[in-house]
Amino acid sequence: MAALFRATGSVLHRCSKHGNVALASSRSMASKTPVGFVGLGNMGSPMAKNLLKHGYPVIATDVFPVSCKELQDLGAQVVESPAEVADKADRIITMLPSSPNVIEVYTGPSGILKKVKKGTLLIDSSTIDPTVSKEMAIAAEKMGAVFMDAPVSGGVGAANLAKLTFMVGGVEEEFTAAKELLSSMGANVVYCGPVGTGQAAKICNNMLLAIGMIGTAETMNLGIRLGLDPKLLTKILNMSSGRCWSSDTYNPVPGVMEGVPSANNYQGGFGTTLMAKDLGLAQDSATSTKTSVPLGSLAHQIYRMMCARGYASKDFSSVFQFLREEEGQ
Amino acid sequence: MAALFRATGSVLHRCSKHGNVALASSRSMASKTPVGFVGLGNMGSPMAKNLLKHGYPVIATDVFPVSCKELQDLGAQVVESPAEVADKADRIITMLPSSPNVIEVYTGPSGILKKVKKGTLLIDSSTIDPTVSKEMAIAAEKMGAVFMDAPVSGGVGAANLAKLTFMVGGVEEEFTAAKELLSSMGANVVYCGPVGTGQAAKICNNMLLAIGMIGTAETMNLGIRLGLDPKLLTKILNMSSGRCWSSDTYNPVPGVMEGVPSANNYQGGFGTTLMAKDLGLAQDSATSTKTSVPLGSLAHQIYRMMCARGYASKDFSSVFQFLREEEGQ
Amino acid sequence: MAALFRATGSVLHRCSKHGNVALASSRSMASKTPVGFVGLGNMGSPMAKNLLKHGYPVIATDVFPVSCKELQDLGAQVVESPAEVADKADRIITMLPSSPNVIEVYTGPSGILKKVKKGTLLIDSSTIDPTVSKEMAIAAEKMGAVFMDAPVSGGVGAANLAKLTFMVGGVEEEFTAAKELLSSMGANVVYCGPVGTGQAAKICNNMLLAIGMIGTAETMNLGIRLGLDPKLLTKILNMSSGRCWSSDTYNPVPGVMEGVPSANNYQGGFGTTLMAKDLGLAQDSATSTKTSVPLGSLAHQIYRMMCARGYASKDFSSVFQFLREEEGQ
Amino acid sequence: MAALFRATGSVLHRCSKHGNVALASSRSMASKTPVGFVGLGNMGSPMAKNLLKHGYPVIATDVFPVSCKELQDLGAQVVESPAEVADKADRIITMLPSSPNVIEVYTGPSGILKKVKKGTLLIDSSTIDPTVSKEMAIAAEKMGAVFMDAPVSGGVGAANLAKLTFMVGGVEEEFTAAKELLSSMGANVVYCGPVGTGQAAKICNNMLLAIGMIGTAETMNLGIRLGLDPKLLTKILNMSSGRCWSSDTYNPVPGVMEGVPSANNYQGGFGTTLMAKDLGLAQDSATSTKTSVPLGSLAHQIYRMMCARGYASKDFSSVFQFLREEEGQ
Repeated sequence: MAALFRATGSVLHRCSKHGNVALASSRSMASKTPVGFVGLGNMGSPMAKNLLKHGYPVIATDVFPVSCKELQDLGAQVVESPAEVADKADRIITMLPSSPNVIEVYTGPSGILKKVKKGTLLIDSSTIDPTVSKEMAIAAEKMGAVFMDAPVSGGVGAANLAKLTFMVGGVEEEFTAAKELLSSMGANVVYCGPVGTGQAAKICNNMLLAIGMIGTAETMNLGIRLGLDPKLLTKILNMSSGRCWSSDTYNPVPGVMEGVPSANNYQGGFGTTLMAKDLGLAQDSATSTKTSVPLGSLAHQIYRMMCARGYASKDFSSVFQFLREEEGQ
Repeated sequence: MAALFRATGSVLHRCSKHGNVALASSRSMASKTPVGFVGLGNMGSPMAKNLLKHGYPVIATDVFPVSCKELQDLGAQVVESPAEVADKADRIITMLPSSPNVIEVYTGPSGILKKVKKGTLLIDSSTIDPTVSKEMAIAAEKMGAVFMDAPVSGGVGAANLAKLTFMVGGVEEEFTAAKELLSSMGANVVYCGPVGTGQAAKICNNMLLAIGMIGTAETMNLGIRLGLDPKLLTKILNMSSGRCWSSDTYNPVPGVMEGVPSANNYQGGFGTTLMAKDLGLAQDSATSTKTSVPLGSLAHQIYRMMCARGYASKDFSSVFQFLREEEGQ
Repeated sequence: MAALFRATGSVLHRCSKHGNVALASSRSMASKTPVGFVGLGNMGSPMAKNLLKHGYPVIATDVFPVSCKELQDLGAQVVESPAEVADKADRIITMLPSSPNVIEVYTGPSGILKKVKKGTLLIDSSTIDPTVSKEMAIAAEKMGAVFMDAPVSGGVGAANLAKLTFMVGGVEEEFTAAKELLSSMGANVVYCGPVGTGQAAKICNNMLLAIGMIGTAETMNLGIRLGLDPKLLTKILNMSSGRCWSSDTYNPVPGVMEGVPSANNYQGGFGTTLMAKDLGLAQDSATSTKTSVPLGSLAHQIYRMMCARGYASKDFSSVFQFLREEEGQ
Repeated sequence: MAALFRATGSVLHRCSKHGNVALASSRSMASKTPVGFVGLGNMGSPMAKNLLKHGYPVIATDVFPVSCKELQDLGAQVVESPAEVADKADRIITMLPSSPNVIEVYTGPSGILKKVKKGTLLIDSSTIDPTVSKEMAIAAEKMGAVFMDAPVSGGVGAANLAKLTFMVGGVEEEFTAAKELLSSMGANVVYCGPVGTGQAAKICNNMLLAIGMIGTAETMNLGIRLGLDPKLLTKILNMSSGRCWSSDTYNPVPGVMEGVPSANNYQGGFGTTLMAKDLGLAQDSATSTKTSVPLGSLAHQIYRMMCARGYASKDFSSVFQFLREEEGQ
């Protein structure tokens, strides 16, 4: 029920607790009131397009005029700043590269919070430090707005196909409202807990993913060196306790699977530099919570080394190639 | 020539390819000629019992009289030494704790090779260094016998239920003969390649398993510290790219799954000390083949630390507990 | 103008380059104007006492009344808040446990910057994130004050004996003024570069120290297991390329040296929990500068594990004991 | 006293226990009886030359005729096989690349033990697995000969200048005899304990060296990224607890020191591939003694990665360069 009243903000929402039949008629209309979108990059652009496809009027902005122009041609209204977006929309989605960008877009001189209206729902789909998410939530709350973190998994392909998974952190009563919007852009919308837990889930998944990928790469390499056929070894692992997503769905060894980056010289997919960034967030979170994450930490260092050695833009499964090269001299 | 004297050996097997109805009757009979068994420990004992259940006469030996007595009561013939076993059986299975035991049992003063008959099929199900397997194969070949390595996965429970998986390395023509026997003790018998590749497959699987387990443990711990519910985090990982056997089948966090060691104070299962041993074999193999296995190497060190800190006999998923303890003051 | 009100400040210092005999008499007197001190913990307390010993009037504050009382009895003036300290002194030293405390003491509601006078010299001897040091410097500059970071090495013993080493970051022209004060509390005062480089030097040293200590511990342990006498091995390492501070000055193996924590059940010295904190700062710095620090990162994880396993308050050389324990059954 | 009788072997030595004044005159002469030398590579060749310089007749062999020819021109007698060397000399030094070579040269078909005389002193200066040293000692003892392990530190430069350090393991009574010979080739000859402890000391030193070097490299890299001048940081580390041989004697950062490989594009020095080999020996020893060596293990993996990425023949301090490269795009 909560989401029905989103359009008119949290004040009404609070009213709804007292029962308010009169508002029911405004609901369906409400759900197609304008949605703000800040950050039209590789991920944000297809996400905003999917909102348009679902009939939402979109008020968008980005620092790159080209990105804005493209969305404008598809029917979006382009404005100058996040503040202006906040002036015109009471549901806003942000999709930005990193923590400093999020801080700027929300709390900067022309940021969202300069003009945010009471009751506005702010959904940040960037992958950032959970502590920054919490700070933004507190800042938003001071202005009477609601902030939720909703990072995604799935990459550009899933963004185009509206097949993203959203991991959502924030006040539970607002989840339905968030889910309504996010469902236009994704196939799964999972509620994770208080603000920051969406980021936590994302970071945890990607840390384990990186560990599994490097582990699979070194295991396959060792097996090959010991005389095993890589396809046979993959089959054995996948029917045994070594099985993981990197072995059965995204195998890093060229020739084992089709349709994955390892079959295409490690192009496309999820770049090493992006994985290194997510692992950095995991390290920051582990350090601040005094949690021992030995393999996650080493995985981070390995992806850092790869970035330093020319692998920055290759898919993260190229760690197989990085470890593999034959010994010279 | 080598297999000539083994009733179900490769010569008959080869003949059978040309159609040989006349031999069919001798083959089934042949298959119930005595089978030797050396090593009646936690794993070997139930394996030998399953051979008895399938109607094979068993000629057994072990250094512990108690183990021998138990099998004798079930109908096995107990003899004094591996050499005597070799004197009485032309198919022999060995199941021993480590490389030195295997060397002793095969090449020692009262070892199998002292009395092995030409054509005998020797199947070693111990988990040992693949280079030792190769040495045993060469030594066996000099005596006209055939050696195969066939380590298992599955643990004591699977051994009892005849549900083990055997990973078999050796001459391909002998695989059918080996498979016939091993099928009495296991649900899967996989041919891996030349001698040593059975060990290689086992070692590779367990290295990736250890990496996945530690990775899952530290990821779950981090997630919990960041405010996520462990069951919810497990669900998210398992529908995402962090999924692995340790997260979806053998979760190390108490309360997440039933029927796994983490639900029973990490009792039963696969002991930390055994995992440390297998990781040591992986390290030896990686070192001798000059293969870089950074996470496998760190996993080895972590299981070593755990052995030194009182976790030797707990299930290897207790790494969650090892990493978890709260910081004291 | 900034330094105008600080007797030995940079304006005078700059003047002195042009020769200014007239000022000479005021400078020595000036140097005995009051010095503020915030943070009277294990380190801060003996540091403040040394200032008193050198004749500086001290205006101090701390959250713990007991610490204040002790210093008051020695002649210091105790006030209620950092803001009050700033009101009464134009040279202030802060010595606090971690970044959040520094932020609070400088920028909080009753923080130094609320009442800081133009030209005040602020010296922070806490070990914190260099980025926080930079933020404090910017905040101080806005108020016309000068902020320098000056973390120490040497521990409580060195603090008592005024034998600390200060690593100082900040505007070079202010270094002489800082050095004058710090020399009352330390034997070495080293200028490192712009604000934050004092912290950088401290963090770098401690990261390499941790690596050397763990490396020494595991090397000694391995040598002992291989049959070497620990004293002999220490001698060999120290005359060879394995030599490091942890092997030749602070050996972690009981019985090798006297007067070090390993000779006293790892009591005293530099606590594991403090080392873990410094390694966390190193990780944060490495992550934010995208620097690969594989051993530093693993060292951090090992000290984290130790904290979780009861070693938090032991000297950091107890890693030898942590790694050493015999394998149980 | 023991060494005096070396020339005429252990039988005399045993006699000496009963007093034998008559032999005294043979001693000094005895010390210039022929010395055998097997293995004339980069290290062995200058070592053998130094024996010649000190007046020892040398009986040498090597698989490479060129190496033999060079030594022959300097006065050595060249023979066909290790067995022949053993036939003509009762003190023999071996200097070989790895364990399999040592096994072959001692126990192979034309190996030393085929013709070794009773009482012969066998000194192996190769760096190999201590367990192989022990096996060789047992095999030698069966033939009435004495085997000692005496690996060196110091590299080709020290070999040329007779400045090597020998770490000697073996029966203590034979040490004086060994020392007499080794002193012709080295500046330090250290007795370490029973057979194998020479190797143990060498392996331990090099493991700690590798840890210190990588630690120094990553610390310097981090410091530079944080704005510190590398020379200043080196100075600070060297006056603090971060000090180690790699920071104060063999700094890996170009421009910090002269006369070290980092000043010469990492040419010369101690090759990465050799360090990787020694770390492999350390791992084998740690695994077989169940010793946890987390940093040593990771150091091994890093040098393995470097070998795979083109650093095999560069000095091991090039790990600074390996970690350093700027992130590409």
